[in-house]
Amino acid sequence: MSDIGIRIDPDRLRRAGKPEAIFAEKKGVDDLIEAVKLMLEKCGRALVTRLNEEQLSALEREFKEFKILKNERGRIAAVFTRKAFEEFSNRKCRCEVVILSAGTSDIPVAEEAAFTAEYLGMSVKKFYDVGVAGIHRLEEPVRYIRNSRALAVIVVAGMEGALPSVVAGLVDRPIIAVPTSVGYGVAFNGLTALFSMLLSCPSGVAVVNIDNGFGAAVFAYTICRIAFRDA
Amino acid sequence: MSDIGIRIDPDRLRRAGKPEAIFAEKKGVDDLIEAVKLMLEKCGRALVTRLNEEQLSALEREFKEFKILKNERGRIAAVFTRKAFEEFSNRKCRCEVVILSAGTSDIPVAEEAAFTAEYLGMSVKKFYDVGVAGIHRLEEPVRYIRNSRALAVIVVAGMEGALPSVVAGLVDRPIIAVPTSVGYGVAFNGLTALFSMLLSCPSGVAVVNIDNGFGAAVFAYTICRIAFRDA
Amino acid sequence: MSDIGIRIDPDRLRRAGKPEAIFAEKKGVDDLIEAVKLMLEKCGRALVTRLNEEQLSALEREFKEFKILKNERGRIAAVFTRKAFEEFSNRKCRCEVVILSAGTSDIPVAEEAAFTAEYLGMSVKKFYDVGVAGIHRLEEPVRYIRNSRALAVIVVAGMEGALPSVVAGLVDRPIIAVPTSVGYGVAFNGLTALFSMLLSCPSGVAVVNIDNGFGAAVFAYTICRIAFRDA
Amino acid sequence: MSDIGIRIDPDRLRRAGKPEAIFAEKKGVDDLIEAVKLMLEKCGRALVTRLNEEQLSALEREFKEFKILKNERGRIAAVFTRKAFEEFSNRKCRCEVVILSAGTSDIPVAEEAAFTAEYLGMSVKKFYDVGVAGIHRLEEPVRYIRNSRALAVIVVAGMEGALPSVVAGLVDRPIIAVPTSVGYGVAFNGLTALFSMLLSCPSGVAVVNIDNGFGAAVFAYTICRIAFRDA
Amino acid sequence: MSDIGIRIDPDRLRRAGKPEAIFAEKKGVDDLIEAVKLMLEKCGRALVTRLNEEQLSALEREFKEFKILKNERGRIAAVFTRKAFEEFSNRKCRCEVVILSAGTSDIPVAEEAAFTAEYLGMSVKKFYDVGVAGIHRLEEPVRYIRNSRALAVIVVAGMEGALPSVVAGLVDRPIIAVPTSVGYGVAFNGLTALFSMLLSCPSGVAVVNIDNGFGAAVFAYTICRIAFRDA
Amino acid sequence: MSDIGIRIDPDRLRRAGKPEAIFAEKKGVDDLIEAVKLMLEKCGRALVTRLNEEQLSALEREFKEFKILKNERGRIAAVFTRKAFEEFSNRKCRCEVVILSAGTSDIPVAEEAAFTAEYLGMSVKKFYDVGVAGIHRLEEPVRYIRNSRALAVIVVAGMEGALPSVVAGLVDRPIIAVPTSVGYGVAFNGLTALFSMLLSCPSGVAVVNIDNGFGAAVFAYTICRIAFRDA
Amino acid sequence: MSDIGIRIDPDRLRRAGKPEAIFAEKKGVDDLIEAVKLMLEKCGRALVTRLNEEQLSALEREFKEFKILKNERGRIAAVFTRKAFEEFSNRKCRCEVVILSAGTSDIPVAEEAAFTAEYLGMSVKKFYDVGVAGIHRLEEPVRYIRNSRALAVIVVAGMEGALPSVVAGLVDRPIIAVPTSVGYGVAFNGLTALFSMLLSCPSGVAVVNIDNGFGAAVFAYTICRIAFRDA
Amino acid sequence: MSDIGIRIDPDRLRRAGKPEAIFAEKKGVDDLIEAVKLMLEKCGRALVTRLNEEQLSALEREFKEFKILKNERGRIAAVFTRKAFEEFSNRKCRCEVVILSAGTSDIPVAEEAAFTAEYLGMSVKKFYDVGVAGIHRLEEPVRYIRNSRALAVIVVAGMEGALPSVVAGLVDRPIIAVPTSVGYGVAFNGLTALFSMLLSCPSGVAVVNIDNGFGAAVFAYTICRIAFRDA
Repeated sequence: MSDIGIRIDPDRLRRAGKPEAIFAEKKGVDDLIEAVKLMLEKCGRALVTRLNEEQLSALEREFKEFKILKNERGRIAAVFTRKAFEEFSNRKCRCEVVILSAGTSDIPVAEEAAFTAEYLGMSVKKFYDVGVAGIHRLEEPVRYIRNSRALAVIVVAGMEGALPSVVAGLVDRPIIAVPTSVGYGVAFNGLTALFSMLLSCPSGVAVVNIDNGFGAAVFAYTICRIAFRDA
Repeated sequence: MSDIGIRIDPDRLRRAGKPEAIFAEKKGVDDLIEAVKLMLEKCGRALVTRLNEEQLSALEREFKEFKILKNERGRIAAVFTRKAFEEFSNRKCRCEVVILSAGTSDIPVAEEAAFTAEYLGMSVKKFYDVGVAGIHRLEEPVRYIRNSRALAVIVVAGMEGALPSVVAGLVDRPIIAVPTSVGYGVAFNGLTALFSMLLSCPSGVAVVNIDNGFGAAVFAYTICRIAFRDA
Repeated sequence: MSDIGIRIDPDRLRRAGKPEAIFAEKKGVDDLIEAVKLMLEKCGRALVTRLNEEQLSALEREFKEFKILKNERGRIAAVFTRKAFEEFSNRKCRCEVVILSAGTSDIPVAEEAAFTAEYLGMSVKKFYDVGVAGIHRLEEPVRYIRNSRALAVIVVAGMEGALPSVVAGLVDRPIIAVPTSVGYGVAFNGLTALFSMLLSCPSGVAVVNIDNGFGAAVFAYTICRIAFRDA
Repeated sequence: MSDIGIRIDPDRLRRAGKPEAIFAEKKGVDDLIEAVKLMLEKCGRALVTRLNEEQLSALEREFKEFKILKNERGRIAAVFTRKAFEEFSNRKCRCEVVILSAGTSDIPVAEEAAFTAEYLGMSVKKFYDVGVAGIHRLEEPVRYIRNSRALAVIVVAGMEGALPSVVAGLVDRPIIAVPTSVGYGVAFNGLTALFSMLLSCPSGVAVVNIDNGFGAAVFAYTICRIAFRDA
Repeated sequence: MSDIGIRIDPDRLRRAGKPEAIFAEKKGVDDLIEAVKLMLEKCGRALVTRLNEEQLSALEREFKEFKILKNERGRIAAVFTRKAFEEFSNRKCRCEVVILSAGTSDIPVAEEAAFTAEYLGMSVKKFYDVGVAGIHRLEEPVRYIRNSRALAVIVVAGMEGALPSVVAGLVDRPIIAVPTSVGYGVAFNGLTALFSMLLSCPSGVAVVNIDNGFGAAVFAYTICRIAFRDA
Repeated sequence: MSDIGIRIDPDRLRRAGKPEAIFAEKKGVDDLIEAVKLMLEKCGRALVTRLNEEQLSALEREFKEFKILKNERGRIAAVFTRKAFEEFSNRKCRCEVVILSAGTSDIPVAEEAAFTAEYLGMSVKKFYDVGVAGIHRLEEPVRYIRNSRALAVIVVAGMEGALPSVVAGLVDRPIIAVPTSVGYGVAFNGLTALFSMLLSCPSGVAVVNIDNGFGAAVFAYTICRIAFRDA
Repeated sequence: MSDIGIRIDPDRLRRAGKPEAIFAEKKGVDDLIEAVKLMLEKCGRALVTRLNEEQLSALEREFKEFKILKNERGRIAAVFTRKAFEEFSNRKCRCEVVILSAGTSDIPVAEEAAFTAEYLGMSVKKFYDVGVAGIHRLEEPVRYIRNSRALAVIVVAGMEGALPSVVAGLVDRPIIAVPTSVGYGVAFNGLTALFSMLLSCPSGVAVVNIDNGFGAAVFAYTICRIAFRDA
Repeated sequence: MSDIGIRIDPDRLRRAGKPEAIFAEKKGVDDLIEAVKLMLEKCGRALVTRLNEEQLSALEREFKEFKILKNERGRIAAVFTRKAFEEFSNRKCRCEVVILSAGTSDIPVAEEAAFTAEYLGMSVKKFYDVGVAGIHRLEEPVRYIRNSRALAVIVVAGMEGALPSVVAGLVDRPIIAVPTSVGYGVAFNGLTALFSMLLSCPSGVAVVNIDNGFGAAVFAYTICRIAFRDA
């Protein structure tokens, strides 16, 4: 246990196939920097999610000697030691994941998923703003998926959350659905989309927490590890 | 006020374009028969919804001198005096309404809507089991609607309630969405479908209460009255 | 897909009778302007809802060469190219919609509906602050509706949301009910009004999402298209 | 504490103006009879609410030597010793309460209120089936109330629960609103009606628990005690 | 209908025994002042609830020629023309209401009730911080009520909302319970207190909306009008 | 893992101070008997909760060679081998727990707690029907607790759940509150009582799940183990 | 569309990797048999979930010429034509899935998952009653998973739903969590377990609807198809 | 009752074993200081919870003549007169409580509990960041507890709230569970953690309100008083 009470679990990725990440929301800048330092020390790299602008600037100032990758729309960043970054740069992306989002407001969550997937060594193909209001917009991504070797499809949607149902009826890959807190009135900050996705008529859809693009990518990564374990 | 406390409002259809109907659920057989009698006396005909088998048999016994139309799947029946039935039989169905249902379990509610629409003098075209799990099944109804003169489309769906969103993106008629209490777990007896429909990405969808096929048909009828007022 | 991930669907109005609109809430000013530009390019005009003051000023600065109509109370604006505005100015308003609001706090939502209806070529008659606390205030609008050729009545109410029930018992036009997030305590940001409206004793009321004045007007427009298709 | 764990509080009516009653729902017949016996012993009379048919028959058998008043629709009964019944019969009803109910399905709750009010020595005037779907049906009860000396108006309604709001805008007596569990879908067993009543636009409405006709009458009785304390 | 859409209902107090008040929350300062002016014109006085500091200052500036009474803790004020204030000052307070509050955080709501009651011509006796955590603190108010001629007791409580139950078991006056949004976690902004009060074991408690001190006082006033109608 | 999938954890009581019990609700009679047999084999005794009449009879038939203790009101029973029963009979009850219940309908849950406590070797003192509607009924149990050596007080209440708050303000023992599913309307099967208890104004109240008399007794037992560990 | 309104989608398994199944709950026996016949005709085999005893007997009578596999605890059965059964019997199970359940009451849902997985050609390894109350019981399944080639772990749990979190921290396979409706009080028919699983601290858990063992197996199957696509 | 309406209950600690504390949230600085003064006058010391920075500074300025202990992370402070502080400093800590927290974001609530426990004269041992994602991190605290004489274990957790279940299965002390409002999406500000804890599979867990570290410590203190009453 560190001074601020953190116990880093550096073995988790190897043991359980899940990276530790730092959830920045509501964290003070000092605690955040302390946590990143501990992670760098133990693991050589640190992934930080749900950053606001002030926190991101602070990280950039504090870790300017390190390599930082970031995605502002997705409010996510990764800090690497030089050595870790070299390893990261030389990785081979054998796994592909496809990410679909229903509306433009869902893009930040989709970007969190995309960034995380790439951080974990996967390649990503994105199709955004392909919601069910104009079903013809789905033709292109469906054709792509059918012809691709993508291991999983992450579908991000708010409002009525209908996109995963439709996609699951059209393609045969595991569908990881991410409800978003987009919408007003009875959207209930994503709860309706969540329930809608859990009720998807075609089975074969599994769901993660509202706005949890990070978790969807980690789940895709566990599929990836299995599919390529002996390759 | 009758002995059992009912005040029939025989002028409602003329004044407000809405028929009075008798909601049979939880009503005792005696009260139900009393209510039908009062309606027949004042209006010459009575529409009864949410009938169980016992209630329906009782009506058939009690009103065997009258003309009864019924739909067992939709749990709905209408009792007419001879004179009222003659009028009803000679009506001209100038209005058409199209009724879509997502799954086979949604059919009872769709049938309630269909029966009510016909009782109100509309003609009905049905397409059932055309939910979003197999989106290709929508091609036929969409083509039909586009080429028809239908005044409104009633879309009945439970579970994730995604069908109205998809249909509303494809055709230009008023979409009256009816959530059903079909589903389990987070279906919450139709609440998720209801919220989903209210959040429909393409606007132009309006919603009625869960399982309220009757209300959807009445709403379609108010459109019908307007569209044909001078014809 | 544009740089910011938007795919405009310019054919939607023709295909599905629903205009695309830009929902400004939570959008950054740059993304908003980009979206408006794309719409103008594809459709010649753009409707923007839920604008805050800063966003509206930014639009006025950015599009000062264009024609802008706005309604500050309704937080809504439309940007037109000169050519599109000329067409808009010469439209004939054959459809009339009547808009009622229960309390003064419901007026912004009513104004959003009114602006949208006019943007879609309908004429609008408004009666505000006619809630059920003083039922005599309803006499004037009811008389007006009965004598008018209005195709639909949009009823906007928060709190207990009782107005649509009462109006539906008095006039024969389709009632499109819009619950608002007005109220405190058990108003639950409009949820009680929404449920209340769905339970309206007289049938023939259909409901849209909380505060969705825009959607109510679009729904009225789909009725309008049908009623005047051959006229 | 009796053998079955009951502690009768015979002083409550005098001390706190509220009668003790026995809530029969889910009680075994033996426990119910035991409770009535204890009440008769301590107070000379016992009021029993929410009786089912079997329980009522059992009471009539068991207490055939006593005087029993009952209302089957309201599922309520009172058992008196001869002496207590004589007193009851000679009471003077100085207080009047008016009871309105919105729909026919709300009548059982209204009858529970009416029976309780009479048991407590008030006189009752009833107007049933006067819901807002046909607002003209309210004219008669409103005229009656305005011209009467009624101390309070109990308004019983399920579904959207709009009746108390309308009545409160028309008459100046305390309005005690009783939501009922009538309705389906988003009626949520009376919760929507309850919230609706709490949000009544005209103030001056107070609410009791769902289906609690008994409680409404007791509340009216506390007003009665105050109004006539020195008379 | 005024320019800002308000229709004042000056006859409501006479007709329905309820004063109109202006709910200031979320109102712009200009709209608020306009509303007060309209009220003064029609009724000679205006009651304004839920004022913030800025709104109150604005009222004091704008109406400095008028007489203003205010209660900052209760966020409530009244503006009078000279003539109306003279009448108000000469009123006789024949009705007394007792107001209890459970915790110190409930005091603002209790003060709103007290101010409203005095505005309506009642006299008020207050006992604050007498919650159930120290039941001995209730002795003094209970003794007072029993010996007083108070017509009603308003009980204000947040958190678990247990105070009205205990008080209703001890005194015989009508108990008007006001839940407050005080508390955290499962207090749900007053919802638990509301439900708790509706479930009060001793009957004879009626409830108003969360934080609605104003409504509780208006309800007490309707009792007052009845009790003193011929005096 | 047995044939029916059960893995008995015979060490739990020693390791974690909690007995394993068999929750009979919804269990088939065969599975229930199988489970009891496994428990008897591993531990010499078995506690079974939430028994219906049919299940209890089946146990009595099946285990007539064994010693059975039961409490029908509490729907709970214990089966012992002869040896285990002898040990049980010779235990010394050094710990006392006091159990209070608010209403008569709460007694079954209180009895489940009492039976469990005795099964775990504690002595029990009960006070039933001492709810807050008649606060004077609390005097006797409060005096008893203050003068006793009771280690904990279990307070069982449904409806508004106010009793634990009042008791916690009067005595200094740990208060273990058990909400019950007693009540109707907004009682929500015990949820309001649960929330009410969690919000108890005086701190020092901890809560277990709705109707979980068993859990309350187990919790009291963990206190007992600590208090008497070296005695 | 068949006479009873069903449109079989025989291409779904090939196109979308998801089998069609017949959900028997609330279906009449005639409709159920009709649906099975249609499936057999189009696909040669039919999977039926949520069967009650009566429905299962009816299937066995009606399809006695066919091959039926069933699991009564899991309330699930499959009907095959001879030809389809031969194919099924000769399949090679290259994919393994491990199924864990927390308590004995969760076993029916786990069995539904197991049966479905085998129906889809996977091999299944089960560990039941390994909930977190005795964490040592997890050692065996964790060791098994780590040493196995299992592609996914299905974790079934009701009550507090904590098992998936703990397992996800210990093994690196995709965790498909299935909440069950086991529990009482605040279990809310599985909702708490569902939310708990969505909040799993270690990421990499995805969730399906409450009691949806079938859906979990289908999701595992989509992973299986990907992992073995070229083998 | 003071000028600001507070009635201090100085006898509560002696009578009921619970200290009075001042809940600072939403209190104005003047009211807060007034309350502290009253407490100091009556009891010699005052505990203040939920302080923000501004309030804490104000206390430090106002009471600089007094002794102040504070914990900024836990947002809690205590003010003592010199005499009271001397007594406090010389107390003997015979009771030990162990505090566990699941994640780093739960630490503020854990610190509130720790500070309160020490204020009440207990000694505290803390283990933070020992959540179920890495179950091996629990080994150390479990070994500690088993070998300690700790009277109770306070377990603080947000998100899925699984930690108390696991700990309760491993140690035999009373487990006081504190859900925290940590998490997003379906965490519902701590509600899921709360329900999860109430459903803990091993019994012997009791729960306090969300974020109520103070209440958990007070509850532990009531156990402490009992365990050491004669020592």
